[in-house]
Amino acid sequence: MASNEFDLIARYFEHQAVSRRDVILPIGDDCALLAVPVGSQLAVSTDTLVAGTHFLAEADPARVAHKALASNLSDLAAMGATPAWVSLALTLPEPDEIWLAGFCQGFFALAEYYNVQLVGGDTTKGPLSITITVHGFVPQGEALTRSGANSGDWVYVTGNLGDSAAGLALVLGQQQVEDPQLRDCLLARHYLPQPRILAGQALRGIATAALDISDGLIADLGHILTRSGLAAVIDVDKLPLSPELCRFAPERDRALQLALSSGEEYELCFTVPEQNRGAIETALAHSGVQATCIGQLRSGQGITLMRGEVPLDWQLHGYDHFAE
Amino acid sequence: MASNEFDLIARYFEHQAVSRRDVILPIGDDCALLAVPVGSQLAVSTDTLVAGTHFLAEADPARVAHKALASNLSDLAAMGATPAWVSLALTLPEPDEIWLAGFCQGFFALAEYYNVQLVGGDTTKGPLSITITVHGFVPQGEALTRSGANSGDWVYVTGNLGDSAAGLALVLGQQQVEDPQLRDCLLARHYLPQPRILAGQALRGIATAALDISDGLIADLGHILTRSGLAAVIDVDKLPLSPELCRFAPERDRALQLALSSGEEYELCFTVPEQNRGAIETALAHSGVQATCIGQLRSGQGITLMRGEVPLDWQLHGYDHFAE
Repeated sequence: MASNEFDLIARYFEHQAVSRRDVILPIGDDCALLAVPVGSQLAVSTDTLVAGTHFLAEADPARVAHKALASNLSDLAAMGATPAWVSLALTLPEPDEIWLAGFCQGFFALAEYYNVQLVGGDTTKGPLSITITVHGFVPQGEALTRSGANSGDWVYVTGNLGDSAAGLALVLGQQQVEDPQLRDCLLARHYLPQPRILAGQALRGIATAALDISDGLIADLGHILTRSGLAAVIDVDKLPLSPELCRFAPERDRALQLALSSGEEYELCFTVPEQNRGAIETALAHSGVQATCIGQLRSGQGITLMRGEVPLDWQLHGYDHFAE
Repeated sequence: MASNEFDLIARYFEHQAVSRRDVILPIGDDCALLAVPVGSQLAVSTDTLVAGTHFLAEADPARVAHKALASNLSDLAAMGATPAWVSLALTLPEPDEIWLAGFCQGFFALAEYYNVQLVGGDTTKGPLSITITVHGFVPQGEALTRSGANSGDWVYVTGNLGDSAAGLALVLGQQQVEDPQLRDCLLARHYLPQPRILAGQALRGIATAALDISDGLIADLGHILTRSGLAAVIDVDKLPLSPELCRFAPERDRALQLALSSGEEYELCFTVPEQNRGAIETALAHSGVQATCIGQLRSGQGITLMRGEVPLDWQLHGYDHFAE
C-alpha cells in the first residue's frame, strides 16, 4: 500500500511524547489546545525556509530541520521568551521516507533539548519548503522589543560574528580551506546555529532592546535604530571574531566585513544602558555565551562604522531574498 | 528602486490597524506579543496551500487568500473557538505587486469580518505557496474535539455538501454548465467557502465531537470514528444537497456521491446525543446555517452507507494529496 498523507503525518509527526502539561490536546485534532500560564504573554513567530533560496534541496535533512527550528527559536530568544510549542508546515515533492526520517531526527533533537512540543502542522505535496511557527512565554511587560533603546545605550552582540557566512562560502564552493577540522567547524557554524535562548531570558530587565542577527548585523541593528529612532557608532575593531574565521579570512578587513554582513548568525544584538553594563556578565554566566560591546547609540539615524577614531566608508548590505 | 523583501512586508502586511486589545505588540518585531484571556485555552491550527496542488497559480489572488484563511478559520470553527490572531507565511516567485494587492484585499476582508489580527509572518522567494497559522480562544474545557462521540449519538452536518466539488469540476473543465448564474454560484461555493465560526461556538455544550469537512465527509467522519472508537450508519438520502448541485448533477446518485466525497466544503460534521437534539435549532438560529441529521453512531468501526433500510456498496475515498 502506498504511503498517503495521513500515514505520513501519523508516522512521523505524532510520535513525540507529550511531556508538557500546558498541552491540553496535542497534534491530531482540528486544532491543538494549549494553556498559557497566568501572568505570561504569548510570543509568536513564523519563518519559512524554501529549498533553493534558504537551503540546498540536497542538503542533509537533519541539518535543514535543525536550522529551520533554530532560526525560529532564535526569534523567541530575541524577545527573552521561553519556548513552549511549535507548528510545522512541511511541503514535499514526494513522501520520501528517508528524507523525512532524517528531518524528524534533527527536528525533534532540537525540540526536545528546549522542551518544545510539536502541537500541529500540515504535510502537503509541492516544492520543498518548511514553515515553522514557534510559541513561547514572556512574563508580562518583560519582553525585549526592538523599540526600547535609548541614546547612550551600549550595543552588544553575543558570541562571534561571520562564521556562518564563512561556512556558506564553503558550501557554495566560493572558497576552499585545506584543514578538514577548520572546514567542519565552519560548516557546523552555518548548519547548526544555536539559538541564544538562555541568554535572551537572562537579559530581561538588563537590555533595553534586542533582536537576533538573521539578515546581517548592519541590516538587523538598523531595525533597532529605525524602531527606536536612533543612530549607532560601531567600532569594527571590537567585533568578536572566532579564531576559525580569522584563519578562513586572514586579511582582517575581510573578516570584519564578513562579521558585519553575515546573515543567519542567530547571535543576539542588544542594547544596554550604562547602569546595567555591570550586570551582563553575571546574567550570562549560565547561558554558555559571552557578550561583546561593539559600539554605542546616539541621536540621529544610520550606522557609522569607525576604526577607533577614524570613520570607515565600507559599503555593506544585509541579506535580501528579493535582491537581484 | 526595486522592491525588496522588507518593503514588501512593510507595505502590504503592516498596514492593518490593530484593533484588538489582546495584541500587545503587533507585526514588526522578532515576535508578536499576545495576551490570552484568563479562563480561555488557546486553539492553534496550521494549513498550507501550494500552487498547483491546492489552487491554480493563475487563480484570482483575492479568492486564493480568502480560501487559505477560510480553511484555517474553519479549523477554529470545528473546535468551537473564537478567532483572534493569524500568522501568514507567503512564498512568491517574485514580488508581484498586483498579485499582492489582490491577495491582501481578499485576506484582510475576511480577517476583518471575523476581527482577526495579522500578528506576524514571513515573505520569502520561491514557488508560490501560503501557510497560515490561526489562533483562537475556547473557554476552558469546552472545546469540541474529535474524540468525544458516543455510541447512539446522531451525526449532523451544517449547510449543503457537494457544491465545492461541483465548482472544482467547472474550474478544471471536467464539466460544463450552460446557465452562467449556476456556474457562478458553484464557482463561488468552491472559491469562497464560509467558515462556520458562529455555528461552532453555538455547538459548545451541545455537540460531543466535531470537525470540519476538508477531505470529504467519508474521510473526515472517519477521523471522528477512529478517535472515538465507533462506527457510523449514514442514510445517503438524508444528505443535504443544494438546488444548484441537483441541477449540476441531475442523476441523484452522482450528486450524493459528490456530497460524500467532496473536499474543501468547510461545513461542520458533528455528533449530538439524543437529549441535546432539541437544542440544535435554537443554538444555530443566529449562525446563518442549518444542520441536517444524516445518520447515527454505533459500536464497531467504519462507515455503512444506507438508502433507507438498504445497504449500499459505493466505493468512495477522501481527498489525498499524495494519492496517485
